[in-house]
Amino acid sequence: MPKIKKLLVANRGEIALRIMRSAQEMGIKTVAVYSEADRLSPHVKYADEAICLGPPPSNQSYLLGEKIIKFCKDLGVDAIHPGYGFLSENASFARKVKEAGIIFIGPSPEAIEVMGSKLAAKQAVSKYDIPMVPGMEKAITDIAFAKSKAAEIGYPILIKASAGGGGKGMRIVESEGEFEEQMQRAVSEAESAFGDGAVFIEKFITSPRHIEIQVLGDQQGNIVYLFERECSIQRRHQKVIEEAPSAVVTPELRKAMGEAAVGVAKACDYHGAGTVEFIVDEKLNFYFLEMNTRLQVEHPVTEMITGKDLVKEQIKIAEGQSLTFAQEDLRIQGHSVEVRVYAEDPKNNFLPDIGKLSTYVRPQGPGIRVDDGFEEGMDIPIYYDPMIAKLITYAETRQEAIDRTVRAIDEYQITGIQTTLGFCKFALQHEAFTSGQFDTKFVERYFEPAVLEEKLSAGEEELFAALAVEFFQKSKKEAVQNTMAQSPVKSSAWKNRLK
Amino acid sequence: MPKIKKLLVANRGEIALRIMRSAQEMGIKTVAVYSEADRLSPHVKYADEAICLGPPPSNQSYLLGEKIIKFCKDLGVDAIHPGYGFLSENASFARKVKEAGIIFIGPSPEAIEVMGSKLAAKQAVSKYDIPMVPGMEKAITDIAFAKSKAAEIGYPILIKASAGGGGKGMRIVESEGEFEEQMQRAVSEAESAFGDGAVFIEKFITSPRHIEIQVLGDQQGNIVYLFERECSIQRRHQKVIEEAPSAVVTPELRKAMGEAAVGVAKACDYHGAGTVEFIVDEKLNFYFLEMNTRLQVEHPVTEMITGKDLVKEQIKIAEGQSLTFAQEDLRIQGHSVEVRVYAEDPKNNFLPDIGKLSTYVRPQGPGIRVDDGFEEGMDIPIYYDPMIAKLITYAETRQEAIDRTVRAIDEYQITGIQTTLGFCKFALQHEAFTSGQFDTKFVERYFEPAVLEEKLSAGEEELFAALAVEFFQKSKKEAVQNTMAQSPVKSSAWKNRLK
Repeated sequence: MPKIKKLLVANRGEIALRIMRSAQEMGIKTVAVYSEADRLSPHVKYADEAICLGPPPSNQSYLLGEKIIKFCKDLGVDAIHPGYGFLSENASFARKVKEAGIIFIGPSPEAIEVMGSKLAAKQAVSKYDIPMVPGMEKAITDIAFAKSKAAEIGYPILIKASAGGGGKGMRIVESEGEFEEQMQRAVSEAESAFGDGAVFIEKFITSPRHIEIQVLGDQQGNIVYLFERECSIQRRHQKVIEEAPSAVVTPELRKAMGEAAVGVAKACDYHGAGTVEFIVDEKLNFYFLEMNTRLQVEHPVTEMITGKDLVKEQIKIAEGQSLTFAQEDLRIQGHSVEVRVYAEDPKNNFLPDIGKLSTYVRPQGPGIRVDDGFEEGMDIPIYYDPMIAKLITYAETRQEAIDRTVRAIDEYQITGIQTTLGFCKFALQHEAFTSGQFDTKFVERYFEPAVLEEKLSAGEEELFAALAVEFFQKSKKEAVQNTMAQSPVKSSAWKNRLK
Repeated sequence: MPKIKKLLVANRGEIALRIMRSAQEMGIKTVAVYSEADRLSPHVKYADEAICLGPPPSNQSYLLGEKIIKFCKDLGVDAIHPGYGFLSENASFARKVKEAGIIFIGPSPEAIEVMGSKLAAKQAVSKYDIPMVPGMEKAITDIAFAKSKAAEIGYPILIKASAGGGGKGMRIVESEGEFEEQMQRAVSEAESAFGDGAVFIEKFITSPRHIEIQVLGDQQGNIVYLFERECSIQRRHQKVIEEAPSAVVTPELRKAMGEAAVGVAKACDYHGAGTVEFIVDEKLNFYFLEMNTRLQVEHPVTEMITGKDLVKEQIKIAEGQSLTFAQEDLRIQGHSVEVRVYAEDPKNNFLPDIGKLSTYVRPQGPGIRVDDGFEEGMDIPIYYDPMIAKLITYAETRQEAIDRTVRAIDEYQITGIQTTLGFCKFALQHEAFTSGQFDTKFVERYFEPAVLEEKLSAGEEELFAALAVEFFQKSKKEAVQNTMAQSPVKSSAWKNRLK
């Protein structure tokens, strides 16, 4: 059985660092790759060796698969971890890595290929009795047939153009009475937009939650599920808060979803760490969405509640080791929340913000983990995903984990750049979140940017900002010496207490 | 039932911060006290309010119980958490706090008093069948009687002067043949040193381990044990590495020690968090040593393996709440190690080192918790215990927790001051530690300061130190831009890889 001795991480930022930390704990040497924009990054300094791939953007550096493989040969690297994004779900890269005699830490190229195509994935899982969103298998233009099918599926239903995309030719039909009219409109819209009037019909999920299942499979065919992650809090259709377990998943539902996820993994002879994504409706029916054949951004919440190090498991599986635990050995312990700290302005529709991390002080103490790839004083490059950090918390119960996350957000000091921290605090304290009764439309439904405004006059705000910078950043000693009286003082103004 | 709304933490440094973090998560306002030497400390900034007690040393500030009580009244504080050290085991202070109508977060003054006296403690626990180091109840001078008693106890035995201290009049007797001679010497040594020839005889534990049990009791009389902490790695008779669980404690021994600890707690009607310390010999016999009636420095390892927040439990108990779990609900999950980062020079007999934390970068990532009370650029005051931080790690197994701790030590960047980190790395990697076969004499037996010396010439050392400072601290951008080639580079020289 091959023992990995030197690992190249074909990624950047927090995930590169996170992977290298596990590798180092396993006694594996690490090689970092970087673009010129990332030459000062912690992941470059952390590695035993580091090598520049080229300038940004990614197609001139992080996506240069052939170059990465060549470097592996030059440096005697025996395995590549692709992280997430970039080359992680590129079947052709995985195949070339394998052909070069290097271990690809991930599933087979075939599994990546199958799950990379919605149609191939659907076909592959068809014999495993995996629930799919109810709908018609084939596109049609026949209104009468469509209507009878719609009645079978049950209203509301969604009509989608077969050739469509971007919402064009898409119609929600609430009841049978309006079906014919909407169907006619959809067909004619599709015809004029795509020159093809064929449409699909599927059940419309009114209050969808996004819940995913983590699976781990070894090369001997053993596959287990590591329970769910609740990922419904999203902005711009991208996750921003995740938690495990979900507030609404019952033990029975967990087992059913877990077994379905194992079925999906079996359908493509999956090995490694993978994630099966489901849509869950108000009545807790779940439907297979897709499988991500790589480590997820939000994998730490699963690590917190299971005690497993998913990167170490990936590495051991890639070496050919069998899983050392079975399904019945896995148990959920406690609760974990992850908030993603993006360089974005929640008051401006979550548009990416750029600039320098003038202040960057992480929260500390019990139950706090911060995975990041930046240090104070660094610029957030414009070329990549604007994620600064993942703040992960752990506690015995869901409410304690929420309270701990809020405490940690209050401790987090970031200046020089707008972040999602304030929005996350708002969301965590919102009744819809604390009660567990939310779906993927949380932001549209509840978030008003005005709630993040301080209740201070402009002058006060400036003064407080200046004071905060003075106290926290610049010559702390003198500033505090000059102003701190030896009598009771209110110090809460110094805290980064986001509203 | 009283709900604590405002808590004063009568302590400093890491433990003050750690307590305030839990209080904040519970929605409790916090008040810090500080000495003039600590006016810039994070615990002062973290609190909602902060108040200066006076100049160092402690008897002019942190030990001023009356002043602290007065401040509580002035500020509307309803509870005091004493942390560890300072006033935490001062029964008279606890009594005055209670008399002032303020909640003391700890046991009753009576329990503190009983456990504060070795004799009173021994008497109190006598009816609970707690194992004590075998020996004579009363001091004698009669050699023949002593010899028969020694035969009963079993060799080796220890002869201690009744009036003694500091090792004077103390004799180890390996076998019966040498008993008379050693006893005569001990009696005459004791006579000449103390004017009192009376001696005690007790069993000599040749290879003692220090293992302690965490207990929690509520005011309704429910007491549970939260398993053991292994605290045998000590220097200068003080703990420096702790772990939970212990590598040598079996489930049966754990239950026996746990039940004995609960017995000790019952003997003084204990409520709150407390620790019962035991000596464990080579054959895993255990003997009651003493009870610490407060939170221990090393409490986090217990938090990691049980999922309980001990400070929150203390606060809830002080409010009068019952424990929400019973003994059978508690389970050990995984393994946790704590290394204490002291400002001490292991190469110079662990003498305290003073100076400024020129560089202070904490380790990050999965399974790492750092509890500290300093920031980069701060001076370590000479007035207090020289502990800078506690590095706590968590993983599924003991070996993984050790590997993770070593990884975290490598990541920890501290310059400007000597610390115990290098010694801790040495200890964690020593075969005696990894095998679990060690006792309180680890340092005397295995540690040679020379092992911490870098295998570099003086010139190389200087160069590397300068480079490290340049890369990590000063104008990172320019330094790295100027020197990092766009070709494979060995970056391990930048790491704080302690030998």
